[in-house]
Amino acid sequence: MSLRHFSALLLCLPLCAMAADGNALVKTNTKPKNLVIMIGDGMGPAYTSAYRYFKDNPETEEIEQTVFDRLLVGMASTYPARESGYVTDSAAAATALSTGYKSYNGAIAVDTEHKPLTTLMEHARGAGLATGIAVSCQINHATPAAFLSHNDSRRNYDAIAESYLDSDAQVLLGGGQRYFSDALLTRFRDKGYQTLSEFDQLDGISSGKVLGLFADVQLPWAIDEPQAHKLSKLTAKALELLSAQEQGFVLLVEGSLIDWAGHGNDIAAAMGEMNEFANAIEVVEQYVRSRGDTLMVVTADHNTGGMSIGTAGQYKWTPEVLRTLNASPETMATKALANEDWQQPLAQQLAFAPSAYEYAELAKARMQGKDVLESAIKRLIDVRSNTGWTTGGHTGVDVQVFAAGPASSLFNGHQDNTDIAQKLLSLLPKAAKKPVAATPEVKTDTQAQPLKEQVVTN
Amino acid sequence: MSLRHFSALLLCLPLCAMAADGNALVKTNTKPKNLVIMIGDGMGPAYTSAYRYFKDNPETEEIEQTVFDRLLVGMASTYPARESGYVTDSAAAATALSTGYKSYNGAIAVDTEHKPLTTLMEHARGAGLATGIAVSCQINHATPAAFLSHNDSRRNYDAIAESYLDSDAQVLLGGGQRYFSDALLTRFRDKGYQTLSEFDQLDGISSGKVLGLFADVQLPWAIDEPQAHKLSKLTAKALELLSAQEQGFVLLVEGSLIDWAGHGNDIAAAMGEMNEFANAIEVVEQYVRSRGDTLMVVTADHNTGGMSIGTAGQYKWTPEVLRTLNASPETMATKALANEDWQQPLAQQLAFAPSAYEYAELAKARMQGKDVLESAIKRLIDVRSNTGWTTGGHTGVDVQVFAAGPASSLFNGHQDNTDIAQKLLSLLPKAAKKPVAATPEVKTDTQAQPLKEQVVTN
Repeated sequence: MSLRHFSALLLCLPLCAMAADGNALVKTNTKPKNLVIMIGDGMGPAYTSAYRYFKDNPETEEIEQTVFDRLLVGMASTYPARESGYVTDSAAAATALSTGYKSYNGAIAVDTEHKPLTTLMEHARGAGLATGIAVSCQINHATPAAFLSHNDSRRNYDAIAESYLDSDAQVLLGGGQRYFSDALLTRFRDKGYQTLSEFDQLDGISSGKVLGLFADVQLPWAIDEPQAHKLSKLTAKALELLSAQEQGFVLLVEGSLIDWAGHGNDIAAAMGEMNEFANAIEVVEQYVRSRGDTLMVVTADHNTGGMSIGTAGQYKWTPEVLRTLNASPETMATKALANEDWQQPLAQQLAFAPSAYEYAELAKARMQGKDVLESAIKRLIDVRSNTGWTTGGHTGVDVQVFAAGPASSLFNGHQDNTDIAQKLLSLLPKAAKKPVAATPEVKTDTQAQPLKEQVVTN
Repeated sequence: MSLRHFSALLLCLPLCAMAADGNALVKTNTKPKNLVIMIGDGMGPAYTSAYRYFKDNPETEEIEQTVFDRLLVGMASTYPARESGYVTDSAAAATALSTGYKSYNGAIAVDTEHKPLTTLMEHARGAGLATGIAVSCQINHATPAAFLSHNDSRRNYDAIAESYLDSDAQVLLGGGQRYFSDALLTRFRDKGYQTLSEFDQLDGISSGKVLGLFADVQLPWAIDEPQAHKLSKLTAKALELLSAQEQGFVLLVEGSLIDWAGHGNDIAAAMGEMNEFANAIEVVEQYVRSRGDTLMVVTADHNTGGMSIGTAGQYKWTPEVLRTLNASPETMATKALANEDWQQPLAQQLAFAPSAYEYAELAKARMQGKDVLESAIKRLIDVRSNTGWTTGGHTGVDVQVFAAGPASSLFNGHQDNTDIAQKLLSLLPKAAKKPVAATPEVKTDTQAQPLKEQVVTN
């Protein structure tokens, strides 16, 4: 490429970003002041396609586009360090996205020799930016942990929770009360955090540091609280609080429970979580469009469940059945077990009457307890919607990358997940390129704790 | 957007295309003279990711990028006309890609009222461009048919074959001898076509119109002829013959059998077909890079099989077993049935020795005939590679879009499959925008013929 061409290119790229955004207000030839990275955990390509058809209004001729369609710019590979093969877990993927380096499955911002890797959040702090997270899982789960902590193992939940005392994050919003004892909460308050445990308390906070834990472990399924919009509200509050920071900020938002629904092969809960994650993306998109100084990058850490839009040889997917459900299969099963007169309430939650054969299958499952009944309800919904699954774990398909705002064109086309981190790091102010001193030692829980989540969530 | 910004944008977009191509020679502010559209039939996102890991050299630290990674620019939705739901077949998808309009599953370039839709090839012909196809299925199969013919139903193979007499295509290369009787071949020769039936005859052709049919139905599995590179050679010959056309050309290349492997849930054959399609893409990429006047756009019509990279709860995919196979499961099964001493030859084809348990399973399957044995071999390979499948049909996940050459940036980001056709049509010379007169009537086979393909290929 000639020097003249290259110079033209340098001038041209930021303007192209502007065009891709459709936003003339954005000064795209400058670095963004603020970065928002949003991760749909487990949200492989089939999830965003399925979400489009789930949201389609069948009364109209055309199929409406979604926020994902509007923002798509590229894709990313997700494989972990070679020792862990080709299929990543959330910890290695989040480490790649937060540090720019591959590591082993289970690693929380440490390399394959278990040495700490400086994170995007640490770099940002070193450059004087504020940081924050808003997630729908426990805040010390793998994805946020790899942005705020360092640990040999994602399983060391207590050590990760305690390490957040040193993270200096302005905003910590999500679930996980069980990992934060009263004594630990006191230490957070001693560091200047306002600590919250009720969702409504958020309205009373308009400045300062905040640790808000609104569930014992993860937030409730979005499908069980269709009006709550908790992740969107956490996201909006995080943006509000971080906007007060003159130097700018880096915010991580995670639609964590898409992955949990995928592990459970639960298309009903998955579409509910996709809907709430899409709402949160729209909150950020509105912020990005209105300000012009903020870059948003949305991606997934990996694909979960091997979900497919159509299965069993049939050329159809019928999300109609999903659109009218008004509870998660988990909630349906819990309610159906608690009540001898279970058939009519279940039909109301499903918004259709199961056939005699389906009722018989459900009755058999109900006699074997909640887990079996929940699986039977999910299977019923799979059959009615013609949804397929291949695994309760992860798969290695590339994920999508979505972006808007200044420098969003950096993320066009194919890239590795480590490239996403490197690009984000390149956008931080210069000072951020020096590693910060305060990288803590890697800690392990003194007592290993049994995992009590109902869903395997790797 | 201000006028100043908009002007800058107009100047900027072609240069961005140049940057995306990495090719300073391409004058990207002009329309391309030639268009090459390449379709990986059934090639959903999991196929290109799997292909990267299949091709990975485990001796190196990094995982090598593929031609798909190099050329990725966007993605496309694939749903058919509303009456056919959300999951397309190859006919409706090819109709969308060739005409810019949605139609029903089964439609060959006709609308939902069964009226002919003008195709990209007809528009090109109207503008004086030459046209051609190079495919690995029978040339009258759904995808090429929707570019060269019009029919109520993809099943009318004979009528579609006969209609090609009126297509005026310069180059027709692929399989399908059974659909072209001696009498029909004579009519093609009367129209000036050179007709070929042996692959080696291609070397003798250096100009003129050509109809080359090199298999009774589809070409052999690429994995069974690793040195043959038939699709690449057909592609190179098509480019050579069409390059002689002063006005430019439109060429369709289809990696047809990726879909057939997907329908058969055959990861071994699928990776072989992906490899040969990648080779054909590289042939075209080299042509595009060296000339500067040709746009290539690569996509898929839909996803097939619900294939997943990892299954059954395990976080692994082990393509090592696929890299050393030296025959398709179909060929392995045929050979194992023909020979009482089948175990050692099968182990040689697999390049590993099955366990005693695996041999016992294969022996049981062998007693039930070729189809059951072939399925057992595929299952064995699935287990060893940890590959998952959800269907013998199609699924609705979006597909990727890859492009290089002048105007390739038009295909960045999300689009519908009909948008791809509209963008290609916008790049044809002006005359092409008027519908051409010669749209033929829609014909049906006078005698319905039984379908004899061994694989269901919709």
